Amino acid sequence: MSTLPDKTVERLSQYRRNLLICDAKGKEHIFSHEIANIHHITPVQVRRDIMLIGYTGTLRKGYNVKELVELIGQILDKPEGQNVAIVGAGNLGRALIKYFVNRRKNLQIVAAFDIHPEKIGTSLVGVEVYPLDQLKQIVKEKNICIGIICVPVNEAVPVTALLVDAKIKGILNYTPRPVNVPENVYLEENDMVTSLEKVAYFAKNKN
Amino acid sequence: MSTLPDKTVERLSQYRRNLLICDAKGKEHIFSHEIANIHHITPVQVRRDIMLIGYTGTLRKGYNVKELVELIGQILDKPEGQNVAIVGAGNLGRALIKYFVNRRKNLQIVAAFDIHPEKIGTSLVGVEVYPLDQLKQIVKEKNICIGIICVPVNEAVPVTALLVDAKIKGILNYTPRPVNVPENVYLEENDMVTSLEKVAYFAKNKN
Repeated sequence: MSTLPDKTVERLSQYRRNLLICDAKGKEHIFSHEIANIHHITPVQVRRDIMLIGYTGTLRKGYNVKELVELIGQILDKPEGQNVAIVGAGNLGRALIKYFVNRRKNLQIVAAFDIHPEKIGTSLVGVEVYPLDQLKQIVKEKNICIGIICVPVNEAVPVTALLVDAKIKGILNYTPRPVNVPENVYLEENDMVTSLEKVAYFAKNKN
Repeated sequence: MSTLPDKTVERLSQYRRNLLICDAKGKEHIFSHEIANIHHITPVQVRRDIMLIGYTGTLRKGYNVKELVELIGQILDKPEGQNVAIVGAGNLGRALIKYFVNRRKNLQIVAAFDIHPEKIGTSLVGVEVYPLDQLKQIVKEKNICIGIICVPVNEAVPVTALLVDAKIKGILNYTPRPVNVPENVYLEENDMVTSLEKVAYFAKNKN
């Protein structure tokens, strides 16, 4: 299958999260309009996304929840899993470690990196903090393919260079500093200050 | 001025962040192509965004950095500032409090809310944790207009209802559960699990 569009991937991830909740509640089938309602989009959009991954429901019952969860997993997940590193074990980094731990069995945070001597060698919910200068070696040893950057803003660019040099394939940048990556690395930037400033701007204009 | 497009607001926030860094380094003028380089967009896009807020640079020197920062502030910020509450003082909530504190003088986190008795009455970098059932009262007392939701996923919907009832004008939802708000509330959803799953999907396909 060719690569799916950005937004479809986002929505499939979101559908799965809510389908798992439906499944846990014992719901066996779901209609596109029910999925659409949860995600504030149109049923047409839902059907289009799900057709893109080669699945169709029935007119009478809709989609089979378990089958759809299974299929989205086949599309999104790597069967053998993917290992993730957190760079920067400050407040945000530590919160992300605790937040993500055991959340997705296919995406395990297996190491954290920092430059502060007092943090190195400590561990948090089983994730050890290593010195930043061992990044390349640990990434190789632990077969890490994704790096999450949560260092102070001035270190975003050099840390990105380290991750690229270590042959990381995907980077999630939580700093407000945009970074550059070569074509063989996927970059997603998630700037929390901008999110908050955007809410503030639009909130200002609401009565 | 009429409301700016979503993406323009995001970019103005990002431009300002990097213009402040330029200013701190003593750089007085900047060209659109320099701004474009930092943000990986085209100079045409930069000029269009900045024209939308009624500013133009000179051909020879580009934009005046201080003037542009000042003008973006006039557009994005409310002069008297906006107060923000964090709902959910768990790992993520506490990290966000520490992350955002004193970052933007116009956006102050002034309260946190939680349901766990052991957290209530504690404070973190000067931000006190109040019981969730006092939300409406504290929002009024402290003139809070923005709420950041970082509660466990099952509480996202009821917490949103509480915030809407308390007449909050903007919500930033960090849970993976999409929520509904009435038209007089601005909603931004920032689902970190989806961001990571998206990176994982695209990283899987990189060689």
